[in-house]
Amino acid sequence: MTGGRPVGVMEAALRGAQRAGGLTVGVLPTNTAEGASDAADIRVVTGMGEGRNVVNVLTSQVLFVCGMSPGTASEVALALKTERHVILLNAEPDALGFWSSLGRSFLHSASTPEEAIEIAQRILRLPGSST
Amino acid sequence: MTGGRPVGVMEAALRGAQRAGGLTVGVLPTNTAEGASDAADIRVVTGMGEGRNVVNVLTSQVLFVCGMSPGTASEVALALKTERHVILLNAEPDALGFWSSLGRSFLHSASTPEEAIEIAQRILRLPGSST
Amino acid sequence: MTGGRPVGVMEAALRGAQRAGGLTVGVLPTNTAEGASDAADIRVVTGMGEGRNVVNVLTSQVLFVCGMSPGTASEVALALKTERHVILLNAEPDALGFWSSLGRSFLHSASTPEEAIEIAQRILRLPGSST
Amino acid sequence: MTGGRPVGVMEAALRGAQRAGGLTVGVLPTNTAEGASDAADIRVVTGMGEGRNVVNVLTSQVLFVCGMSPGTASEVALALKTERHVILLNAEPDALGFWSSLGRSFLHSASTPEEAIEIAQRILRLPGSST
Repeated sequence: MTGGRPVGVMEAALRGAQRAGGLTVGVLPTNTAEGASDAADIRVVTGMGEGRNVVNVLTSQVLFVCGMSPGTASEVALALKTERHVILLNAEPDALGFWSSLGRSFLHSASTPEEAIEIAQRILRLPGSST
Repeated sequence: MTGGRPVGVMEAALRGAQRAGGLTVGVLPTNTAEGASDAADIRVVTGMGEGRNVVNVLTSQVLFVCGMSPGTASEVALALKTERHVILLNAEPDALGFWSSLGRSFLHSASTPEEAIEIAQRILRLPGSST
Repeated sequence: MTGGRPVGVMEAALRGAQRAGGLTVGVLPTNTAEGASDAADIRVVTGMGEGRNVVNVLTSQVLFVCGMSPGTASEVALALKTERHVILLNAEPDALGFWSSLGRSFLHSASTPEEAIEIAQRILRLPGSST
Repeated sequence: MTGGRPVGVMEAALRGAQRAGGLTVGVLPTNTAEGASDAADIRVVTGMGEGRNVVNVLTSQVLFVCGMSPGTASEVALALKTERHVILLNAEPDALGFWSSLGRSFLHSASTPEEAIEIAQRILRLPGSST
């Protein structure tokens, strides 16, 4: 599940998940499904602009975070507020330091995608988890 | 796609769609996925209470309406406002009369589920449509 | 409090309330306050499109309804769903019949603005109420 | 304008603004106005939980930020995303560093309330501004 627009990390994550056989969901800020990524199998149209970030976060059990921008930061903050797990992938030290200062219970850090997946499996207690 | 709670038409529609091999989506008013219908394959958690009705409506191309209650009426009204098609199934004359008075372009009426599906196919120009 | 755009009943209600010395609030569907009515003293910017109707309704103790359109109907429906009082002013018989069929506890009807105000005073148990 | 609940910075800001003769607005996450701060003259009821942070941000021209928590961080992030000015008051160096890395155009920093007000006046080009 991503923000559903055909750009950047949103698009890359949807394409990667689709290639791996996953079912992808795009939660759109717009009033119609026009302009959504082709890689979003299910397009949830919210008409809520940035408010759709709340839907993205609440629907998730674990958020994978690549890079950092104001939109991404709003999702990390809302996730910590609503007690969803966040895995920062290759985060800059200042970002990692800042988010850690807001609470460590739901914040995780990974250096590689493989490590991120392992952390998520451990959180969700999925088969394949090393714990 | 329905409101995702395990009661009434929401639940029956999800179960029916699942049995027919469909992929079901429940758009929940709550802050977590707890209390969602088991028959919702994908559970979108909005935390928006009745505001989630807007998401349901905007995401739909066609709404099938069975029965009428304040919640359902809010979805019909939002659908007509945002130009989504609505098919009223076995509507009471007063409901049909009222909604017709607000605009007929997106309002349809059916006496049987089969007729409703045929109308939807015609609207979506899907294969199997008689037109 | 109205939807805050400078048209129709929204605008007329804000102007009337302002002239009577009231404080007016416009709850806007847009992402900025541009395009709001000048008569809205306070402009709440939601960026939620039609979702802002939920905010209008929840914030109100009593809704005064003039005329009927899909947007208005969504507010009446949400009000009945969330147990806010609705006073229909000079409603058409089919509208009155339809809404009455959904529940009478929170639905009221008035033929004149004076009667509507009297009903609201009774609901809110304000000084000046005849009961 | 604050989040409207009777705790912490939200409450203190409403009380301070009221004492200074200001009109205060509380944008509530709840479905009713119960539990709102007495110091909120106008209580906007959103029923949107954390989604109400979007309303707070979009409605503001300038946000004053005291302290930092996940909820506050979500508002700072949304403000930078939607191009509203943010004034961090006495921010920790790591917070200041992090937010600065996301964009400096709308981010400001002040050591005292007086300095924060002066910055806001300059942004809004209000009378009393030193520029």
